[in-house]
Amino acid sequence: MADKERLYLFDTTLRDGAQTVGVEFSLDDKIAVAKLIDQLGIDYIEGGFPGANPVDNKFFEQNRTKNAIFTAFGMTKRAGRSVENDPGLQSLISSSAPAICFVAKAWDHQVKLALGIEPEENLASISQSIRAAIAADKQSLLDCEHFFDGFKANPEYALACVSAAVEAGARWIVLCDTNGGTLPREIERIVAEVIKICPGEKLGIHAHDDTGHAVANSLAAINAGARHIQGTLNGIGERCGNANLATIIPTLLLKEEYSSRFAITPDEKNLSQLTRISRAFDDLLNRAPDRQAPYVGAAAFATKAGIHASAQAKDPASYEHVAPEAVGNQRAIMVSQQAGKSNLIIALKRHNISVEKSDPRLDGLLRQVKEREARGYSYDGADASFALLARRKLDMLPHFFDVESFRTSIERRHNAKGELITMSEAVVKVRIDGELRMSVAEGNGPVNALDSALRKDLGKYSGRIADLELVDFKVRILNGGTGAITRVLIESRDGSGERWYTIGVSANIIDASFEALHESITYKLVKTAKT
Amino acid sequence: MADKERLYLFDTTLRDGAQTVGVEFSLDDKIAVAKLIDQLGIDYIEGGFPGANPVDNKFFEQNRTKNAIFTAFGMTKRAGRSVENDPGLQSLISSSAPAICFVAKAWDHQVKLALGIEPEENLASISQSIRAAIAADKQSLLDCEHFFDGFKANPEYALACVSAAVEAGARWIVLCDTNGGTLPREIERIVAEVIKICPGEKLGIHAHDDTGHAVANSLAAINAGARHIQGTLNGIGERCGNANLATIIPTLLLKEEYSSRFAITPDEKNLSQLTRISRAFDDLLNRAPDRQAPYVGAAAFATKAGIHASAQAKDPASYEHVAPEAVGNQRAIMVSQQAGKSNLIIALKRHNISVEKSDPRLDGLLRQVKEREARGYSYDGADASFALLARRKLDMLPHFFDVESFRTSIERRHNAKGELITMSEAVVKVRIDGELRMSVAEGNGPVNALDSALRKDLGKYSGRIADLELVDFKVRILNGGTGAITRVLIESRDGSGERWYTIGVSANIIDASFEALHESITYKLVKTAKT
Repeated sequence: MADKERLYLFDTTLRDGAQTVGVEFSLDDKIAVAKLIDQLGIDYIEGGFPGANPVDNKFFEQNRTKNAIFTAFGMTKRAGRSVENDPGLQSLISSSAPAICFVAKAWDHQVKLALGIEPEENLASISQSIRAAIAADKQSLLDCEHFFDGFKANPEYALACVSAAVEAGARWIVLCDTNGGTLPREIERIVAEVIKICPGEKLGIHAHDDTGHAVANSLAAINAGARHIQGTLNGIGERCGNANLATIIPTLLLKEEYSSRFAITPDEKNLSQLTRISRAFDDLLNRAPDRQAPYVGAAAFATKAGIHASAQAKDPASYEHVAPEAVGNQRAIMVSQQAGKSNLIIALKRHNISVEKSDPRLDGLLRQVKEREARGYSYDGADASFALLARRKLDMLPHFFDVESFRTSIERRHNAKGELITMSEAVVKVRIDGELRMSVAEGNGPVNALDSALRKDLGKYSGRIADLELVDFKVRILNGGTGAITRVLIESRDGSGERWYTIGVSANIIDASFEALHESITYKLVKTAKT
Repeated sequence: MADKERLYLFDTTLRDGAQTVGVEFSLDDKIAVAKLIDQLGIDYIEGGFPGANPVDNKFFEQNRTKNAIFTAFGMTKRAGRSVENDPGLQSLISSSAPAICFVAKAWDHQVKLALGIEPEENLASISQSIRAAIAADKQSLLDCEHFFDGFKANPEYALACVSAAVEAGARWIVLCDTNGGTLPREIERIVAEVIKICPGEKLGIHAHDDTGHAVANSLAAINAGARHIQGTLNGIGERCGNANLATIIPTLLLKEEYSSRFAITPDEKNLSQLTRISRAFDDLLNRAPDRQAPYVGAAAFATKAGIHASAQAKDPASYEHVAPEAVGNQRAIMVSQQAGKSNLIIALKRHNISVEKSDPRLDGLLRQVKEREARGYSYDGADASFALLARRKLDMLPHFFDVESFRTSIERRHNAKGELITMSEAVVKVRIDGELRMSVAEGNGPVNALDSALRKDLGKYSGRIADLELVDFKVRILNGGTGAITRVLIESRDGSGERWYTIGVSANIIDASFEALHESITYKLVKTAKT
């Protein structure tokens, strides 16, 4: 490691990523995302704009990262104000973040056009802002907006912005390809020019994917001597997105061209979590993960049966450029019955179910898992449902109660006062020890009403589920249009603090929800069964 | 044009693209895809493997392209057989395609391992196959499988494969990065080595996206002297996909680095159809288009941030590297919490609503957008709902019909045969011109039933919504637990091909769905109103 050069990774998912069409982070989202990305083991996590909106103000009230340097983002001082009298700059300086990434335009045309100030005022702002941050004991970075277009139009001015930041003591000067239109050779050529006045150890790259080159441009800048890459998880970001850190990290760690020359903070252990982290983020965004994503996609190591399959069986490297396990992903071609069974046994052990590898029921269970996953179930995220499926197949599931039928109705109408109201009501019939019990309940929606009705009277089981609580409810439509299938995932919790996840799948959203509810209660009953 | 070098484009959507997980082309699909891709105006369209399966046999009974050279794909002659006695080779030669792309392994290790033959036999097969194709008056190409890994392991053998093809008279020798693991600098270095024995005018590149470099690697090969690029529409393909022609074509035509040096067959007119062709292909695959796709994505020219929008209004090039119209796409300024009045005015203009910046109603609209977004609406993904909100606020929304009430019920019970079934039924009451209309419908879920009932009888409006179709339905639970709010986003389409997005938000999922349905119909009525 000693002889390798250090490369720094900077995540801007919560700032530039928040510019993605369709993405809007709440405070809770931001806290969860920061925690998740911090597991990547990278150097910086940029959290947003303190002072710009209530969510970010709250978010910056405390340091939100354990491993990465928590970084605030904002504009350099406004021209015509002093450092002390610029409320935007003061919000940055007074936030809890130990680092500030300032943004300033590095193209004189844009400075005049968009800011309406003189290019010299902009240079003074850069310098004063960085000095103010350093005086407040913050690490400071400068994002040079429009750098590459600016350099092509007026290289002297673009370089003057860089010099102003270097002289003021900025830790990093980051060259932004703001409209994403620059190609790798031009990136390489211009970075090489900038290095003549700013050492590569202070130079970073911020690339966008408008020509499909965000990753290639980031590496082109490294090839030319820059030592800091900004990107986002799963490549989210304005327009076509930012450089995807989930692609760049494995390339830096696994490809000899980079791994032999550079050291980065993420290690093998972080890397082995990459697929999980990438998918957890999509879950948080409530979107389907991109199956074709490099390294982490569900299809990234999938081979369809055909001429490739037999070569693959003889030598996995034929069609795999890296080992899927290295990034926490898995080969999706013809998982040998044997390998599948080993995974199964490990998962069962987690639920205190021990089965011999030779047990023929394992084949049946494996078949059923695959058959159900093909229909839309996904046991990765629904461990409790997996445990119930396994117990059922292995004859280890006690019989608790039967649901004979349920009915729910939702009505929207005007009430006596002429206001529009919506009422949800549910009726559930269950049979326990031969006795039929019928319960009715209202709720703020059909699922809530069904949940209340189902739990209202479970006879002798009622006491055992008293502390069960639904924490979260997620819905995903699996294929659009008329053949759509709905997958519902429910997160539950009880007094012990344990959380569990159950799943339901159906063309009917209410059906799918009820299945997941029913599974949650059953899991709680298994959990509390006297053994 | 005369002084530009010619670059050739080769589409393998119907062959390598058919290896995509989840993609399976029927004969009708293949005919439709070939017709669609032929509109790109490129040089070659590879249709599949004649002789390998009934669909491809039928497909190759006639020439399926008008502009491109229709190309068959298959293995070189099997070792141990003569040209005449190899049924695979004979199927290629007897197909209607005027060109054949042969595939042969260019890595001696793979030749021995996967084919179980001697490396010399493989060279003889290459040579004999190409000569046989030429004798049958076909243009012939050779795909060198595993070329880059093969070259690194044994450059002499990899180059011997290329030489065998050149000497036999192949029009193109295509270097395949089969497992997608090679990075741009290595591509460039190795292509430069190959050019020493094979002129660039005969050399092609076939790249995969396993490190996110399929496009960059294709251009790296061109930079090194190759003159033929293989790719697929929208980058479909095995694992992470192939080089995306919908990204490469506009880069070659619009970026000076390439447009000044190279001539390709697609022209400005083809280019202006690119977005339509790309989205029509996703329609055909029955999947949602990637909003962040370079050039053609719905978000590729979308700006969300208020500070960007005002700069954008002053100079579109600030955040646009090319003009969206050039690729048949359009600028989209999104309305969201981060928006200011500039965004609003631009967004309104897109809906043919022009308002002065000084109009006081704009403040009211902006306030309402922000207030509703705070409650869970998100207009940047629901443009049609934004247009309706704006028209309502600006008194530009005609009154169509009132929904007096609706009711939906979902029942799960055993039918007469003892099977568990779920029934969904909905009743909707609407008032049109004072007249009450009541409709009832069933559906495979409550939303489908409500949609059917709502659209069943809208009196004088029925004809205007006849071609309205729901394409996708997305559900997001905004905050977990008991205070959960549900956001429903519906994507609709009509006969004109236009797609629009509407939103509904409520504590009750059915309520939220109904709101989004109602908005979709209202948008369609606005769209078809006589002005």
